[in-house]
Amino acid sequence: MKFYDCSTAPSPRRARVFIAEKGIDIETIQVDLGNREQLSDWFRKINPYCTVPVLSLDDGTTYTNTAGIRAYLDALYPEPNLMGHTAQAKGRIADLQWRIETEGMMARAEALRNSVPGMKGRALTGLEAYEQIPELAERGKARAARFLAGIEGLVGAKPFVAGDSYSVADIDLMVVVDFAGWLKMGLPDDAVNARRWHEAVSARASAKF
Amino acid sequence: MKFYDCSTAPSPRRARVFIAEKGIDIETIQVDLGNREQLSDWFRKINPYCTVPVLSLDDGTTYTNTAGIRAYLDALYPEPNLMGHTAQAKGRIADLQWRIETEGMMARAEALRNSVPGMKGRALTGLEAYEQIPELAERGKARAARFLAGIEGLVGAKPFVAGDSYSVADIDLMVVVDFAGWLKMGLPDDAVNARRWHEAVSARASAKF
Repeated sequence: MKFYDCSTAPSPRRARVFIAEKGIDIETIQVDLGNREQLSDWFRKINPYCTVPVLSLDDGTTYTNTAGIRAYLDALYPEPNLMGHTAQAKGRIADLQWRIETEGMMARAEALRNSVPGMKGRALTGLEAYEQIPELAERGKARAARFLAGIEGLVGAKPFVAGDSYSVADIDLMVVVDFAGWLKMGLPDDAVNARRWHEAVSARASAKF
Repeated sequence: MKFYDCSTAPSPRRARVFIAEKGIDIETIQVDLGNREQLSDWFRKINPYCTVPVLSLDDGTTYTNTAGIRAYLDALYPEPNLMGHTAQAKGRIADLQWRIETEGMMARAEALRNSVPGMKGRALTGLEAYEQIPELAERGKARAARFLAGIEGLVGAKPFVAGDSYSVADIDLMVVVDFAGWLKMGLPDDAVNARRWHEAVSARASAKF
């Protein structure tokens, strides 16, 4: 099994922290997104979608996104549990994870990729070249700010965002918060619960990954 | 348990077909998106995000998106299996489902919501009013066309998109194809495998839902 990663990028970190929490030892290969190695001939043979993360099995099977990687690894290594034991916990965690990904991760990515000069012609990840859309950057910034402000209510008084147990929803939410810095954004100063939660998840050994 | 639906919209259909395949009998309440009933006071109390689908349990728990609804119901009603029995099948189905949702569903929605006059100020679902971005409509159309053309290769010679068994990936792919008509788009005429697949999934009893 091989894990194709980029240690500086948000998407593969979602898988990386998951792997660290599960305590799975996987050979890791860095793909240098800064030098567009994801578009190289060698990597296109691994993943024609030209994105990381990728998990490649010895039989040639590949999972080309975090959803696939997590579903596979979670079935093989169910503990420690990160996706819920009961039906209600499974539903709650999946519900939150989806919202954090589509409203937090995606808004942040839209804002960044459509505005920074280094991403001209790279407004979406992957093989195709898409030009930046300045209006989409503005919309992404507005959505990301709204999402960041909403974390206070989302976490509330709970230890973790989905309740008493750490889950994939915490991983993705931490990644959103940590990479919001690239947009010079972050948690509001008065977001007491969100800041307490962020401190707790960041203190875990997995957060270093 | 109550299911909040809109019989004419793509997102709730993803949950609806899933429920039909599982054979679960749930009280269904229609939310009239055409008249913006999702923004009404009564529905905001059910789902502050102002979107459908929603699954509401008798104890007040709500799942406010398809991911949460499916995870909960799948844990309660594991058979017939729609998300994979083995680790490899679970990974493969989750991988495909994510790709179909982010590249197919979202591109189609971007194209439509940013172009049709009836959706002015409603470029994203939910409570907030976002103006249409014409460049995003164009990008969405290009991506949707590319995605539709790629279904032929995605399905290939397999009975279903993830292999021998029908899964949530088939449900979401069918919804993308069926709602592409709103953009006057569809499967290419020469997409033999994609057309054979689409005919097979559309002939299932669940496709009427």
